[in-house]
Amino acid sequence: MKNKTPHCVPDLEREDRIGFAEVIYCQGKTDEQLRTIAVALFASHRNVLASRCNLAQYKVLRKLDERLQYHPEARIAFLHEDKTMYGRGTIAVVSAGTTDIPVAEEAAITAEVMGNRVERHYDIGVAGIHRLLERRDALAKAEVVIAVAGMEGALPSVLGGLLPCPVIAVPTSIGYGASLEGITALLGMLCSCAPGITVVNIDNGFGAGYAAARINRIRR
Amino acid sequence: MKNKTPHCVPDLEREDRIGFAEVIYCQGKTDEQLRTIAVALFASHRNVLASRCNLAQYKVLRKLDERLQYHPEARIAFLHEDKTMYGRGTIAVVSAGTTDIPVAEEAAITAEVMGNRVERHYDIGVAGIHRLLERRDALAKAEVVIAVAGMEGALPSVLGGLLPCPVIAVPTSIGYGASLEGITALLGMLCSCAPGITVVNIDNGFGAGYAAARINRIRR
Amino acid sequence: MKNKTPHCVPDLEREDRIGFAEVIYCQGKTDEQLRTIAVALFASHRNVLASRCNLAQYKVLRKLDERLQYHPEARIAFLHEDKTMYGRGTIAVVSAGTTDIPVAEEAAITAEVMGNRVERHYDIGVAGIHRLLERRDALAKAEVVIAVAGMEGALPSVLGGLLPCPVIAVPTSIGYGASLEGITALLGMLCSCAPGITVVNIDNGFGAGYAAARINRIRR
Amino acid sequence: MKNKTPHCVPDLEREDRIGFAEVIYCQGKTDEQLRTIAVALFASHRNVLASRCNLAQYKVLRKLDERLQYHPEARIAFLHEDKTMYGRGTIAVVSAGTTDIPVAEEAAITAEVMGNRVERHYDIGVAGIHRLLERRDALAKAEVVIAVAGMEGALPSVLGGLLPCPVIAVPTSIGYGASLEGITALLGMLCSCAPGITVVNIDNGFGAGYAAARINRIRR
Amino acid sequence: MKNKTPHCVPDLEREDRIGFAEVIYCQGKTDEQLRTIAVALFASHRNVLASRCNLAQYKVLRKLDERLQYHPEARIAFLHEDKTMYGRGTIAVVSAGTTDIPVAEEAAITAEVMGNRVERHYDIGVAGIHRLLERRDALAKAEVVIAVAGMEGALPSVLGGLLPCPVIAVPTSIGYGASLEGITALLGMLCSCAPGITVVNIDNGFGAGYAAARINRIRR
Amino acid sequence: MKNKTPHCVPDLEREDRIGFAEVIYCQGKTDEQLRTIAVALFASHRNVLASRCNLAQYKVLRKLDERLQYHPEARIAFLHEDKTMYGRGTIAVVSAGTTDIPVAEEAAITAEVMGNRVERHYDIGVAGIHRLLERRDALAKAEVVIAVAGMEGALPSVLGGLLPCPVIAVPTSIGYGASLEGITALLGMLCSCAPGITVVNIDNGFGAGYAAARINRIRR
Amino acid sequence: MKNKTPHCVPDLEREDRIGFAEVIYCQGKTDEQLRTIAVALFASHRNVLASRCNLAQYKVLRKLDERLQYHPEARIAFLHEDKTMYGRGTIAVVSAGTTDIPVAEEAAITAEVMGNRVERHYDIGVAGIHRLLERRDALAKAEVVIAVAGMEGALPSVLGGLLPCPVIAVPTSIGYGASLEGITALLGMLCSCAPGITVVNIDNGFGAGYAAARINRIRR
Amino acid sequence: MKNKTPHCVPDLEREDRIGFAEVIYCQGKTDEQLRTIAVALFASHRNVLASRCNLAQYKVLRKLDERLQYHPEARIAFLHEDKTMYGRGTIAVVSAGTTDIPVAEEAAITAEVMGNRVERHYDIGVAGIHRLLERRDALAKAEVVIAVAGMEGALPSVLGGLLPCPVIAVPTSIGYGASLEGITALLGMLCSCAPGITVVNIDNGFGAGYAAARINRIRR
Repeated sequence: MKNKTPHCVPDLEREDRIGFAEVIYCQGKTDEQLRTIAVALFASHRNVLASRCNLAQYKVLRKLDERLQYHPEARIAFLHEDKTMYGRGTIAVVSAGTTDIPVAEEAAITAEVMGNRVERHYDIGVAGIHRLLERRDALAKAEVVIAVAGMEGALPSVLGGLLPCPVIAVPTSIGYGASLEGITALLGMLCSCAPGITVVNIDNGFGAGYAAARINRIRR
Repeated sequence: MKNKTPHCVPDLEREDRIGFAEVIYCQGKTDEQLRTIAVALFASHRNVLASRCNLAQYKVLRKLDERLQYHPEARIAFLHEDKTMYGRGTIAVVSAGTTDIPVAEEAAITAEVMGNRVERHYDIGVAGIHRLLERRDALAKAEVVIAVAGMEGALPSVLGGLLPCPVIAVPTSIGYGASLEGITALLGMLCSCAPGITVVNIDNGFGAGYAAARINRIRR
Repeated sequence: MKNKTPHCVPDLEREDRIGFAEVIYCQGKTDEQLRTIAVALFASHRNVLASRCNLAQYKVLRKLDERLQYHPEARIAFLHEDKTMYGRGTIAVVSAGTTDIPVAEEAAITAEVMGNRVERHYDIGVAGIHRLLERRDALAKAEVVIAVAGMEGALPSVLGGLLPCPVIAVPTSIGYGASLEGITALLGMLCSCAPGITVVNIDNGFGAGYAAARINRIRR
Repeated sequence: MKNKTPHCVPDLEREDRIGFAEVIYCQGKTDEQLRTIAVALFASHRNVLASRCNLAQYKVLRKLDERLQYHPEARIAFLHEDKTMYGRGTIAVVSAGTTDIPVAEEAAITAEVMGNRVERHYDIGVAGIHRLLERRDALAKAEVVIAVAGMEGALPSVLGGLLPCPVIAVPTSIGYGASLEGITALLGMLCSCAPGITVVNIDNGFGAGYAAARINRIRR
Repeated sequence: MKNKTPHCVPDLEREDRIGFAEVIYCQGKTDEQLRTIAVALFASHRNVLASRCNLAQYKVLRKLDERLQYHPEARIAFLHEDKTMYGRGTIAVVSAGTTDIPVAEEAAITAEVMGNRVERHYDIGVAGIHRLLERRDALAKAEVVIAVAGMEGALPSVLGGLLPCPVIAVPTSIGYGASLEGITALLGMLCSCAPGITVVNIDNGFGAGYAAARINRIRR
Repeated sequence: MKNKTPHCVPDLEREDRIGFAEVIYCQGKTDEQLRTIAVALFASHRNVLASRCNLAQYKVLRKLDERLQYHPEARIAFLHEDKTMYGRGTIAVVSAGTTDIPVAEEAAITAEVMGNRVERHYDIGVAGIHRLLERRDALAKAEVVIAVAGMEGALPSVLGGLLPCPVIAVPTSIGYGASLEGITALLGMLCSCAPGITVVNIDNGFGAGYAAARINRIRR
Repeated sequence: MKNKTPHCVPDLEREDRIGFAEVIYCQGKTDEQLRTIAVALFASHRNVLASRCNLAQYKVLRKLDERLQYHPEARIAFLHEDKTMYGRGTIAVVSAGTTDIPVAEEAAITAEVMGNRVERHYDIGVAGIHRLLERRDALAKAEVVIAVAGMEGALPSVLGGLLPCPVIAVPTSIGYGASLEGITALLGMLCSCAPGITVVNIDNGFGAGYAAARINRIRR
Repeated sequence: MKNKTPHCVPDLEREDRIGFAEVIYCQGKTDEQLRTIAVALFASHRNVLASRCNLAQYKVLRKLDERLQYHPEARIAFLHEDKTMYGRGTIAVVSAGTTDIPVAEEAAITAEVMGNRVERHYDIGVAGIHRLLERRDALAKAEVVIAVAGMEGALPSVLGGLLPCPVIAVPTSIGYGASLEGITALLGMLCSCAPGITVVNIDNGFGAGYAAARINRIRR
């Protein structure tokens, strides 16, 4: 059997260009590819993120550095040794239902590892609107809000109409039938009539956390 | 030129079966077809509805009966001579934005002509949630609520979570881009996590009004 | 391994607002989350529903209360201690084929646990229309009809044209190829030309039963 | 301005191969292209069909042969000089609503010009099922049934379950919103659970008439 | 555990109406439901078809009647005791590739069990057009042609342009990526410019065989 | 003719909640509705935006206040009397092609009227990558970048990989065929592998400008 | 009225990079934008292409250079002063139907203006396969074949199975209903089982001609 | 059990017609079918390709010829005994990410076995554009470039704008959510504004390698 998987080309200058090291997107990578990238990143950085990382891949990576942590539902592995706060304010992560929590956690951990203070507000969807209204004052103090929802695409609309800060909406693939594995939530968030909401890919908690960190980052 | 449009077969026994006369669906019908059906219905009924009726078609029909009324934005023509109340309670029609009003009016007029008391609550979408919360007590008294929304698919979710009565959601084709001419609102309403919401076709105010009338009708 | 699943926020005032306790949507919930919600609900209510509940989840919940019943095909668990009838009339549940029965049962059990009389009419689809016509008199007495169908999207149309009461259509994901996992049945039901039909999400027997209960409920 | 539209290549041997001359598909053709094909066909055949032919195109073609007839709603032009019956039995064309009639007429005229006896049964959709059941005996005598429907995708299912002959279903683009310009009717017909139904493209009355003629044709 | 699966309602008069007994659609049926229907059909018929039947279901059914045969790739079980020929002529079944053969076999066996002579022409797709042209004379003698193809949606077009008889096209779900599990072949067949082709659902060899049998059947 | 368009409910407290007055979404509004909202907003605010405003609607609004300006391609009308800078830094608006400029201008004007410094970089798409690389230093100084592109969905990916700041991607409906009126650009932007990009609805320059202003706003 | 359309950035070095000057994509450009780009290109090149150019735009451009030619159906304007042959061999352009000719002409003219010999073979679709087989020897001599088809997505498959050279498939938007404005032809071509076929966007004759010129070009 | 899988019809003259032997498409084939085709091909050819070949199928084939090689991630088996170079120049295969490598390898091996020199440039996507720009000179020497990308649909656009040769784009199914299993990358590549790019099916590395070999092949 012939097997000639060529080497990867890690983008090690990325931190200079955009302020944070390359992140390891684990899905579909072979163990050898993971190791090649991780060795290079672990050698040069104190904080590293590995997203869409399954348990077996985490175990591969952890052998390279014992300090690597893992959140199994959010499927994110992370090295978090530099605890400096690089962000101006707080990033609030809101989830509509309990089943949206893994995606919300992916966003929260990403933002934390990138040096931000994070506040979690989970299970406060619009079908019981009072739960959300009770948090209004706390949320109004955030620098950025991340709103994670599957069957309640309305959550970012309501937040965008209540709060002055940027709102990043994360649709999740929770649901069945007409939810079309998250497409319905995605489209609904894009059409929100509360202006100033922006959207990331379905289940992309990582992208939302990263975007929030870019927004919150103190400029040099 | 050969032109052999066959005659229509009006379903004149429909009232006996389902409690209201056949409704004229005007779209795509020739003037001759419209006249054939209308003459039969006007002769035998005091209340008649003609939906998706453009202005030219209204003029054709009005020549057959001067009492025929018309709502141009809702594109509905109607004969409303029997003013008996056949419904138990009130039907509330809620619209999210001002651009959703034509569809809301189609629902409201349909319900009225079928013998129901109707209350209108327009332009109270969720991006300014306080406007909706202020109407909560009024809405809680309704027997059925019809929620009409295009860019605010969330409206029925919030209502379904606040009120005990049946909520009929009507998506509208208002919007652009990812709103996909109403498909996004339709899908979002179907996925609502507030239980007990049912949905009709995009822009189908008529169907919502009719369904509400069926629900509200006093049984023999 | 770091695992910080935050707590759920059960909506315990829901019964006051909308007349029935919060329902546990089991899909995607962890055992711990299920237990947290169930303990709160079991403590305060005599009738409880847990939808989309797999066998393992049922076993988790049953340890909390021995009286919990289960329908394995409909994947619904339920506590049904309060047998009071809260509904005015009968809710008829019709299924087109035998493979649609699990969804029909989800609707029927939901309505029963919410305090309604339910009549089942299964396997009477339109490809053998005589089977349906024979039930016409029985169905005409129902307060609400729930029509469950996958490959026979026509069923609610025929029922809507025969009966005076509200018809709630439930598309199922039964079928293959062009049935698009229920999307075809869903769209067909939305386009029905029999007026007054409303539709719920694919396979959402629970939602249909809940909506029927809202319609049938005796108002205070 | 440079304009070098090359000539067409009419398939004049088609009649030998498949039993009927090439049909002129008018949509998108220039007047010059239409004339080139029509001159060749009129010279060699007594029956000719021109489908999707608008009024202006009909006028162009009629100058070539005064006997050319036209059905404006069905947008079909035809020369029908050979009145021999080439078919074994009768082809029944059924339409659900009056707005489906133009497509039904396209099917009926196509079959007639190809030498078949045609019976029309229009406006007998399933929302008033009695209208269809009354025609059952007449329909049972047909060799082939063509069922044309937009908002009542159920029509062919019901017919397929009542009749022993082949049923060709023609979805029409009548409707709005979730009817998706005929896609919903098309998909619904493909998923029909009454076996032995076959389907043609949306609004393709011509194709249905042609297929019915192939089925009904007496073999040499 | 409460389990109240209601009984099925077999349509035993179907043979009188449409000329062949009800067919058992196995997918999604419980063993008990299968047995209920099969016992009724086996008792009253000599030829029976059970489509979409997996191996386990076949074993359940075979216990009821030892003569039951099975084609594992086509997933069809069948009792074929009455060998009378009810058809006028021959039904030709053509497949484009070898991977389309299971669906082609489902069509062929269905037609055979319904009393027709069947000829198989497999693996003669259009990318090597000579293989198809060599069979032209044999195919021209058929009363009906069934064309089964996944990645070669063109097959029915070429056949429809070469042959005078009806052509029933069966798209298969063979392929990947843009083949969209058969949707691309389905749409391509519907748009064929060779007139007189009709189409059935993706992978619906059974429906194609049944429709061919309806066409080929000698009328009383 | 009966015409009872109810009044609008302007959300005049919106500025207190989210920092900028309600914006008039003109599409689908009647002249009377526009006037009602505009009179209320003009009376209480020095800066006002009216998006999706056609020329006729602009003329209606301009009669209410002569200072109202208009950008015809971007279809935005605006009152810009308060020239205070409320933003921290600069918002850069980048367009891929010249045909994307109207949407880019909608974004730019929105941000300006909301009190931000805006820099325009137009016609620098990735098919001629050198044009973009030349602007790199200028872009690196921006606080937020808005990237507007139709046929070059790649633009935000390249920018996201080069720059440290938040990038808001705006898909446009420019293109034909497989561009699906902007859906392709929208999906491509959502899937970008450069992390930290967020997306708004197709052609929603207004939403992007508004979101950028929320990000850039100096907190109290 | 404020109108600040910024200037375009023509990519004048493109010829050095990729061998042919920038092409003007006219759709959506203002007259002023067209003039800016055209003046720059006409000054520095002897051959220039302007695609998707309507008649009014052609007139604007022709005022800048009288030698500019135009093909109205293909909507392409072109300056063709340098008649050098830059290609090795012949490019054959094949169209399935007469209605596909405008797209085929766009491909042919593009290739000619870029310095290639072009042979046209129009109206030889697969529903009359003999017309195509007759051209086989001529086509086998081509260096590249461009196959243009709307309703006969099969054309490239058949060509790819007959010929050794590269085949570029161009789907057209000709058709109706299930042809989905060209999507069906596009998908069918992508799934072709004849290997070595590549595909361009719907109606993109220009792109196919350009790609063929790249393939045919003699390398330095 | 009745099992009558008919024999396959290998197209052994294909090499004469199009210059390379028939390729075995393994997916969905039974072991017996694979053996039948392979025995015929191995007997008459020195180079053979078997695509979409899983490990079990490879083992079946390898028993027929020990020299058969295999690439497990690319799922391609191949006999490569004739090492003659049939191509004029070099084919460059570029991949955006490491997870796109299996598809890229399928393309590379296909081209190699068909007698071409291949250069691999992997993991040089546009989110770190410098990695691609560094390879520009090497890529400019290629006769054809194959660009393989899932989440970076932009890669072929950038290459098409930098290089004079033909670019064949291969979308991959890498990604999640809005990447729609490769549909997004496919559509994005079709809409690229860099002219002269052509596209193959999702994950179809084989087709791209084959097309590149057709382009690169020295003509007789």
